[in-house]
Amino acid sequence: MGRVTSRRRLVRIVDGVVSEPIDTLAAEEPLEIRVNGRSLVVTMRTPGADFDLAAGFLVSEGVVRTDREIAGIRYCAGATADGVNTYNVVDVVLAVGVAPPDPSLERNFYTTSSCGLCGKASLDAVRTVAAWSVRDDPVRLDPEVLSGLPDTLRTAQRVFDRTGGLHAAGLFSADGRLHCLREDVGRHNAVDKVVGWALRQGRLPLRDTVLMVSGRASFELVQKAVMAGIPALAAVSAPSSLAADLAEDAGLTLIGFLRGSSMNVYAGAHRLVQRTGSELPA
Amino acid sequence: MGRVTSRRRLVRIVDGVVSEPIDTLAAEEPLEIRVNGRSLVVTMRTPGADFDLAAGFLVSEGVVRTDREIAGIRYCAGATADGVNTYNVVDVVLAVGVAPPDPSLERNFYTTSSCGLCGKASLDAVRTVAAWSVRDDPVRLDPEVLSGLPDTLRTAQRVFDRTGGLHAAGLFSADGRLHCLREDVGRHNAVDKVVGWALRQGRLPLRDTVLMVSGRASFELVQKAVMAGIPALAAVSAPSSLAADLAEDAGLTLIGFLRGSSMNVYAGAHRLVQRTGSELPA
Repeated sequence: MGRVTSRRRLVRIVDGVVSEPIDTLAAEEPLEIRVNGRSLVVTMRTPGADFDLAAGFLVSEGVVRTDREIAGIRYCAGATADGVNTYNVVDVVLAVGVAPPDPSLERNFYTTSSCGLCGKASLDAVRTVAAWSVRDDPVRLDPEVLSGLPDTLRTAQRVFDRTGGLHAAGLFSADGRLHCLREDVGRHNAVDKVVGWALRQGRLPLRDTVLMVSGRASFELVQKAVMAGIPALAAVSAPSSLAADLAEDAGLTLIGFLRGSSMNVYAGAHRLVQRTGSELPA
Repeated sequence: MGRVTSRRRLVRIVDGVVSEPIDTLAAEEPLEIRVNGRSLVVTMRTPGADFDLAAGFLVSEGVVRTDREIAGIRYCAGATADGVNTYNVVDVVLAVGVAPPDPSLERNFYTTSSCGLCGKASLDAVRTVAAWSVRDDPVRLDPEVLSGLPDTLRTAQRVFDRTGGLHAAGLFSADGRLHCLREDVGRHNAVDKVVGWALRQGRLPLRDTVLMVSGRASFELVQKAVMAGIPALAAVSAPSSLAADLAEDAGLTLIGFLRGSSMNVYAGAHRLVQRTGSELPA
């Protein structure tokens, strides 16, 4: 599509010295996701892998769990500006018999009718909607392999090298091989793109994998990992308290501050096994 | 409220050496914002400054522009989990005569009925809804003063020092004085908290100010600055293409990669004036 980056003249000031170079910026455009022709959500995203993004979003929200539940995905040709298809509206047609999302879907993961709005209700909601449990995934992770993931991710981030402005999400096997890398101005979009790619490849649930993200680990990212059946999430920066709570509740291994040979394990530390074979404290 | 951070035992691995320290995590909880008793949005946020967050969100969406348009803000005592007020539901009562938000408000800034969904439509929407123009704000900015903002922000981020997990937004005067600092797990929430603080102090539009954010500059953050009448936005990291487009369209000065004595000016460079008094290229 050629819309992932755009070039722009800017004014650079370094120690008071002014220059006017041309720089490359990450593109950001709105994407409307429709389901069976009905508008569901609008998200600001970096164009590219839009079908993966739409499919992954529907996995995250519990609407679909296998590729067979999607009959087709297409850009809406009728969504035009000045007669030109903007490629910013995607329609997902569900297979016959698959229930379209509830109109109140946006709130599904935050509140339940039986109780007020709180962190615990958010955890309960994920537990209720998740199609798979990651708790019993037997995958074991070597801290040395984990230490290599950030470098592998950055090396693969060619777009990042050009803009410095994109979040990345990478899906790795337990031995450190990168299966899929997606980038986006929105970290949640990068994860949805990875999950949607996997769904469309028929790979869900994503057992024996680690999802690595370039920034923080929020509740929302842990939710997306759980919904895709991913047993471990690693982040370069800090998790939030609710992200750690959800990881513990769901049996997901949550690693933060993964930098060099150092890492913090906030939940599911039993999956980390050093080369000696000894397990770490649970 | 004492809910901004929470303490948690974790497993730390450094060069294969395992310890189990207690660490502090940034809290994340859902907040439902209601207007006149009707649910508008649910956002995941760090508890604290919730009334500012709700007020600022309504400024960003074009619902209110002065403190007089808000009759009151309160926690909904009825929103309870197990009989306890969760302090996660806030109701904003608008003053008599102020129109409540359109139910389709979520999409206001992304699409217009006259055209498809695209970046240009997003820019048009902000221009239509904004109560003030920042284009004619005569404020001038000294690059040396700007260079000091990131340090001032970090020094003031006491919570950040403890968790490493919070985004910050700081409102500065043109001479580098910090007026308001807010933090949140969500960068957009941190900005809404700053804007809401200003609204409730009767300070909108925020002429002669610079908003500094700790991460990237997205379309959404530029939108929020424009809606609050802030003439300049500075970010530690990269802007997106649409953020730069909106800044140029609205006449806002957009600075990215503000690190040490170096910065990139993506729009509105005419406001930067070196100590010699010479203006930079527009």
